[in-house]
Amino acid sequence: MSLAEVHDTAKTLLLAQGFSESHSSAIARTVTAAERDECRHHGLFRIPFYVNGLQSGQASGTEEPTTTWLTDSIVRVDGHRGFSPLALEHGHKPLVERARRHGIAALAVNNTLNVAALWPEVERLADEGLVGFAFVSAIPYVAPFGGTKPVFGTNPMAFAWPRLGKPALVFDQASSMSARGEIQVRLRDGKPLPDGWAIDASGQPTTNPLAALSGAQLPFGEAKGSNIALMVELLAGPLIGDALSFESGEDDKAKTGAPCGGEFVIAIDPSKCMPGGSLEAQTTHAEKLFDLILSQDGTRLPSDRRYQARERSLKQGVDVPTSLVETLKKLSTGALYSNRQSYEGDPISDSNGA
Amino acid sequence: MSLAEVHDTAKTLLLAQGFSESHSSAIARTVTAAERDECRHHGLFRIPFYVNGLQSGQASGTEEPTTTWLTDSIVRVDGHRGFSPLALEHGHKPLVERARRHGIAALAVNNTLNVAALWPEVERLADEGLVGFAFVSAIPYVAPFGGTKPVFGTNPMAFAWPRLGKPALVFDQASSMSARGEIQVRLRDGKPLPDGWAIDASGQPTTNPLAALSGAQLPFGEAKGSNIALMVELLAGPLIGDALSFESGEDDKAKTGAPCGGEFVIAIDPSKCMPGGSLEAQTTHAEKLFDLILSQDGTRLPSDRRYQARERSLKQGVDVPTSLVETLKKLSTGALYSNRQSYEGDPISDSNGA
Repeated sequence: MSLAEVHDTAKTLLLAQGFSESHSSAIARTVTAAERDECRHHGLFRIPFYVNGLQSGQASGTEEPTTTWLTDSIVRVDGHRGFSPLALEHGHKPLVERARRHGIAALAVNNTLNVAALWPEVERLADEGLVGFAFVSAIPYVAPFGGTKPVFGTNPMAFAWPRLGKPALVFDQASSMSARGEIQVRLRDGKPLPDGWAIDASGQPTTNPLAALSGAQLPFGEAKGSNIALMVELLAGPLIGDALSFESGEDDKAKTGAPCGGEFVIAIDPSKCMPGGSLEAQTTHAEKLFDLILSQDGTRLPSDRRYQARERSLKQGVDVPTSLVETLKKLSTGALYSNRQSYEGDPISDSNGA
Repeated sequence: MSLAEVHDTAKTLLLAQGFSESHSSAIARTVTAAERDECRHHGLFRIPFYVNGLQSGQASGTEEPTTTWLTDSIVRVDGHRGFSPLALEHGHKPLVERARRHGIAALAVNNTLNVAALWPEVERLADEGLVGFAFVSAIPYVAPFGGTKPVFGTNPMAFAWPRLGKPALVFDQASSMSARGEIQVRLRDGKPLPDGWAIDASGQPTTNPLAALSGAQLPFGEAKGSNIALMVELLAGPLIGDALSFESGEDDKAKTGAPCGGEFVIAIDPSKCMPGGSLEAQTTHAEKLFDLILSQDGTRLPSDRRYQARERSLKQGVDVPTSLVETLKKLSTGALYSNRQSYEGDPISDSNGA
């Protein structure tokens, strides 16, 4: 499919299911960007999650986000239980404008269903010459370090740094060892998990995918990764008056795997962070670091593979598996999406630093 | 020693060595807080690093930091190559005031020698009811994930969340697997390193402390921890017009292990991050998360051990090893501190999330 076809397929389908023009467009843009960068789990594959969220009654497909100013530097976008792409688009311009004016500004996105990756919103900030951070919590799947029961979501954080004449340096990574989807794929394929990914319901280490799914995932990097998960939980929840992961989990009564909660985004204008600052001088300085990293065999910058995929896709379009095309066809011909349970999962945890 | 004695010992010694009244006081406060919390590597043990920095001519003991406004939300404190505690104290009040006014604000500390932990500055923000972040890079000791040569400092980041009626939740953690000091201690004791801490000069995994010290330390949490190290490097360096770790390393010609560079601090007022926000309601919400974590055996909150130590020290004072008392006595009687090389190391990397 060409990227235009991906976009049209997604948008047509979402409109037919009852999403408004603005929501359909925003979701289609997000899905298309993911296909373009070969982040397949956030591409067309994700459409059923959106549809499922709507059909279960947990998501609104039509509410327009509302924007308010909490201070002159903090903008709030209330998604009114719509999916996050539209709310994030609403927040983008005000955030950029205030980051440029004050040097640092923040965006609190509330009451949105989050099933997308975080790199689009921080990459968009970097495209404006800003440094961006984003934090989202989710359904509780991850035990705190030393513990045995899930408390944290897979809690991704994303970071972007602008580069001149090149796409931004971006990472977007879950604070769990693995994505939930990676465990589900191993369950399907009858393969064991690597050590360190999960514990079973009794708190013992397990490599059995089924035992892991009924137990808990583990944070990356032991205590330090657990601290990052804790930080994300606080920023995306209590800081902005939104849900903790366990509350999002309780809220997801239909088990759609589409948690309703908050997202916190920070934008910083580097040119305002030093006397006589200029994006050119500061990004040129940073390139010294990137050169030093890339001068070593075996290294890469966190977003490089995604940008290589992007180049390919822009030229050649993308491959969409036949099975997925069939699923989407069924949806588009009005067949109700009823197999919810099989989509229960952790849509945002595919964020793995790619 | 009582904490008052710790403070007086430190201050008297620093004054005698040529530090100004204001620098001596700020460093003594930092050192005393570390002894109080049993962060011994940042306590009196650290005094020779400060003295060494001064005697080598790399640090100024007398320059007063200067404060300027980069925007209405970003304050800059230039340390003029003094040690960081005084510069951080200068930046604290302006940062707090602007975070309260705008909801979010930042502090760029430039041209300071950093050999202290980061938790004091973020805990101080949380004591004012603010959320705090701090980022510092250092001398290059850590290889990027997949690479073989040191590029990153041990690059700690710290985070603090305010709690009502309790000391703040704080973590302060290096983005390397271990502190450099932990490797040096194992070298001294003839013990091997745990797997995963380091590689030798040819890039092969090693458990030999000596081989590790001439090779490279590894980031925590593989690619994800390496991304955190990269982020810290950008925030404490190019973002605020200060040095990358490799530049700090080149600058440290006398190998004092006291890198000159930047620190970036962000402060956020939670009460400004939601409509009708109040510190009480938002911290009460967060306590639900902490209760859930602590309801599990084997868990703790990141700063708990430090606060337990604090309670003990406030009642009973602290133990100071005889050998350290002897070292300090030699310094105080005017014996020049000449054994610089033995203090080469990584003073800030003891930040281990405690």
